Amino acid sequence: MNQPHTYCSENKERFLQELIELLKLPSVSADSAFSQDVLNTAEAVSEYLRAAGCDGVEICETKGYPIVYGEKLIDPSLPTILVYGHYDVQPPDPVELWNSPPFEPVIQKTALHPDGAIYARGASDDKGQMFMHIKALECMVRTGTLPCNVKFMIEGEEEVGSSSLEAFLMENREKLENDIILISDTGIIANDVPSVTTGLRGLCYVEVTVTGPNRDLHSGLYGGAVANPINILAEMIASLHDEDNRVAIPGFYDDVEELSDNERRLMAEAPFDLEAYKNALNIEAVHGEAGYVTNERNSIRPTLDVNGIWGGYIGEGAKTVIPSQAHAKISMRLVPHQDWNKITVLFTDHFKSLAPAGVKVEVRPHHGGQAYVMPIEHIGYKAASSAYETTFGKPAIPHRGGGSIPIVPMFENILGTKTVLMGFGLDSDAIHSPNEHYGVWNFLKGIETIPYFYKYYTELSQNQEV
Amino acid sequence: MNQPHTYCSENKERFLQELIELLKLPSVSADSAFSQDVLNTAEAVSEYLRAAGCDGVEICETKGYPIVYGEKLIDPSLPTILVYGHYDVQPPDPVELWNSPPFEPVIQKTALHPDGAIYARGASDDKGQMFMHIKALECMVRTGTLPCNVKFMIEGEEEVGSSSLEAFLMENREKLENDIILISDTGIIANDVPSVTTGLRGLCYVEVTVTGPNRDLHSGLYGGAVANPINILAEMIASLHDEDNRVAIPGFYDDVEELSDNERRLMAEAPFDLEAYKNALNIEAVHGEAGYVTNERNSIRPTLDVNGIWGGYIGEGAKTVIPSQAHAKISMRLVPHQDWNKITVLFTDHFKSLAPAGVKVEVRPHHGGQAYVMPIEHIGYKAASSAYETTFGKPAIPHRGGGSIPIVPMFENILGTKTVLMGFGLDSDAIHSPNEHYGVWNFLKGIETIPYFYKYYTELSQNQEV
Repeated sequence: MNQPHTYCSENKERFLQELIELLKLPSVSADSAFSQDVLNTAEAVSEYLRAAGCDGVEICETKGYPIVYGEKLIDPSLPTILVYGHYDVQPPDPVELWNSPPFEPVIQKTALHPDGAIYARGASDDKGQMFMHIKALECMVRTGTLPCNVKFMIEGEEEVGSSSLEAFLMENREKLENDIILISDTGIIANDVPSVTTGLRGLCYVEVTVTGPNRDLHSGLYGGAVANPINILAEMIASLHDEDNRVAIPGFYDDVEELSDNERRLMAEAPFDLEAYKNALNIEAVHGEAGYVTNERNSIRPTLDVNGIWGGYIGEGAKTVIPSQAHAKISMRLVPHQDWNKITVLFTDHFKSLAPAGVKVEVRPHHGGQAYVMPIEHIGYKAASSAYETTFGKPAIPHRGGGSIPIVPMFENILGTKTVLMGFGLDSDAIHSPNEHYGVWNFLKGIETIPYFYKYYTELSQNQEV
Repeated sequence: MNQPHTYCSENKERFLQELIELLKLPSVSADSAFSQDVLNTAEAVSEYLRAAGCDGVEICETKGYPIVYGEKLIDPSLPTILVYGHYDVQPPDPVELWNSPPFEPVIQKTALHPDGAIYARGASDDKGQMFMHIKALECMVRTGTLPCNVKFMIEGEEEVGSSSLEAFLMENREKLENDIILISDTGIIANDVPSVTTGLRGLCYVEVTVTGPNRDLHSGLYGGAVANPINILAEMIASLHDEDNRVAIPGFYDDVEELSDNERRLMAEAPFDLEAYKNALNIEAVHGEAGYVTNERNSIRPTLDVNGIWGGYIGEGAKTVIPSQAHAKISMRLVPHQDWNKITVLFTDHFKSLAPAGVKVEVRPHHGGQAYVMPIEHIGYKAASSAYETTFGKPAIPHRGGGSIPIVPMFENILGTKTVLMGFGLDSDAIHSPNEHYGVWNFLKGIETIPYFYKYYTELSQNQEV
C-alpha cells in the first residue's frame, strides 16, 4: 500500500507550508502573555483536523488551555488508535541566541539535513511531529486506505505539566476508549538508525525560595552579619550532590532498579561517539554519576538539575545589595519504580532541613510524572518496529529516553492502554533551546511511516484475536 | 553665630521643596536606560550651586558621566574645604516593593521620624546629604558668615565605582587643592547618638560566568550527563566559606589587622540591641564569622557576599532546561591593610581553580577600593566632633563603618588630604533598598551643623599654624 506515500509526495509542498503557518503561532503555555496565541493555535489545529477528514472535531474547554479532539470511526469491530500530541511550545528565550526569529519559520539546509530543516520554536517539539499524524490521516482518508478507527487528542499544556489533562481523561473515558495510544514526541537515534522509545524517565519539578531579611540590605552595612539568601541557597544546592555526583537526598535511590549487566551491555551497543558528543556541546569533559557511562546517566539513572536560579541584582553594572530572597527551579529526572509524589516529599523535607536558623525556606511543587516502560513483546511495539523497517529499511532499536512524558503513565492508569512512542526527531533538533529545528526529511518520513503502523497494528491485533 | 541657622529655619520649606525636585530625577548610573536623566541631574546640581553663591560653576565632561564643580574663594590665606558628594543613585529595583514610586518623593511621619521622612531613591544616599552642603553654603553666603574657602566636586558615577573620578583628580590637582575634604555619605548611630565615621571597609566587586555546553539543553536528554553550570556555580560559591563562615580563599586574611581586645571593648560600648536588630529584619538568628559579634562582623571584619545570581529559566512556570551559562555578581568587603587589587587576583585565581573540567569560568573585575582610617587626633575629626557637640548637645562617637567609599583613600593618594566623613543619615534609611528615606530632621540638622564645622576647622587650622 503506497497510495498514502504517493499522495504525500504529491502534496508535500502544501504540507510543509501548512506546518510553517502553524509554527508562526507563538503558543507559549508557560507565559500568560501568550494566552491568546495559545487559544488561536487550538483553533488552527481543529481546522487542520477537519480538513484531514476528522469527524466530531471539537475544542474542549478545560480549567486551563483547551484540548482539541477529533475522530474518524469506520468500523467498531476494528481496533482504535488514539493519537496524542500537543500544540503548545516551550518559551523561546534566550531569544537573542536564535539565528532567526523563533516564530518566523525558515527552512535551511544543514550537513545533517541536506533536504533542509525547519527552524522555529515547536518545529520538532511537538507541532512538527504532531502535524505528521494529521497529514498521515489525510493521506489515508484521501486514498481510502485507513485500516482502523482513529481518535485525536491534542492538548495545549504539555510544556507546563498537562495540568488539565487528567480531569479530561477521567471525564471522557468512554469517548477516548482505544486499543493503543500513538505519540510522536520523541526521537530516533539517527536518520539511518530508527528506534522506538521503550522507556521514559519520570519528573519531579519544584521551585524553592530562600528568605532572609525582610528587605534588601546594603552589603556594606550588613555584609557578614546576616545570612545572605543567595549564599545560603548556593550552599543548600551544592549539598544536594555528593562527591560521586549522586543525589544526596536520603531515600532518593531506595526504589531505583539497578539494571542487569546484560541489559547494560545491550544498551552499550547503541552507536555513541563520546568525542563527537563533547565536540557538539563544546565541553572538555562529561560530568555525572560515578560508575555509569553517559548513555546510562541520561536514561536509566535519576538526576537532579537546577533549571533556573535568580536573586539580588541581575541588571547592568554593579549593586552592593544583600537581597531579601533567592529562588531556584529544581527538577529531578526519575526512573521506573521511583514515585514522583514520594520524591517530592523526600526533597521537600530534606531541603527544608538544610536551612540555617537565619533564613526561611519554601518549597513549591510545580508538577511531576512517573517513569514509563513499554515491553518490546507488546504488539504496539512490534507494529512500530515493522513500520520503521518498511520505510527505513532496517528494524528499529528499542531505546530508553532520558526525558519525561508524564502523561504516558497517566494514560495507562486512566485509560488502561499502552502507548507507542514513535518519534522521528533527532537529539540535535535543539528542542527547548534556541534554534530548534526539524528535518524536512524526518517530517515527510514520519508521514510515510505512520500509515504502516496503522496497517501492521490492525493486522497484529486481528491475528491476536484469532 | 546662629545667623546661618536662622536663615535655614526661615527657608526650610523651600529647601525641602528643592530637594524633592532633585529627587524626582531618576539618575540611575548603573543602567544606561537612564543616561539622559543622569545628565539632567548634573545640570540641576550646577544650577543649585550657582543659586547658593558658587562661582566658576561648570559641568566637567569625563569619559563617563560629568562631574559638577563650583567654588567660593574668599581669601587665599584661609583654609579651603573641598566638599564631595554624588548626584547618581542606586537602581530602584525591586520596584514592586516600594510603598510609593521611587522617583515620586513623598514625606511621611514615622516613629523614628516624627517630623517626617522623605521617601525616594537617593533621599539619603546621597542627594539628600549632598544637598545639605549646597544649602549650608547658601546659608553662610547669604548671612555673610562663610569663614573660609570652599570647593564643590559632585560626581555622577559613585554607585558604579567612580570610574572617571581618578582621571579627573589627576588632571585637576591644582584646581582641587584643599586642606580638608568633607563628605556626607555616611550616617550617625542615632539622632541622639552623633558619630563620625573614622573607618571604612574596602571593596572588591567581581562578576563571574560559568559556561558549560555551548547551548541550552533539554534536561531530560542531557540531565545527569553534562555539567550543569548552575549546579557548578552553586558548588563553587558554597566552597567560598568554611564551616566557621570565614572566607575560604587562600591568603584572604593575610593582611587583616586583628584589633586589640581594648579596641574591641571600646567598640562594644556603642549602643546595640541584638533582639531589636533581629526583629527589624525579621530574622530568627544572625549569621557570620565565628568568634566575632555582629558589630564587628559588619565593620572590622572582611566579608564575601553574592549580590546577584542568575541562570536558566527564571520566568513564569516551569522549563526543563540545562542552561549554557550561569552568572553571579560577588563582592568582598575589605578592612584596612587588605589591598583590593591583590584580593581581586587571589579571588580570580582561586575561583578559576574551583572549576571542574566540564565548564569554563570567566571572572570580570567590576571595581574596588581600599579601606580607610581617619585618626581621631586629626583637626578635621576634632572640628567635626565639636560641630556635632554644638548642635546635638553631645560629642560625637568615633565609629567604624562597614560600607565602602573607595574614593576616600583615592583622595588621600592623589590630593594628599584627609577626608572627614560627617554623615547625618541612619542605618534605617534603607539606602540601596526599597523605600529609601531620609529624615527631615536629619536634613535640617545637617544644614545647621555644617557651618560649625567650617567655623571650628578654620579656627583649629589657624591655631595650628601659630
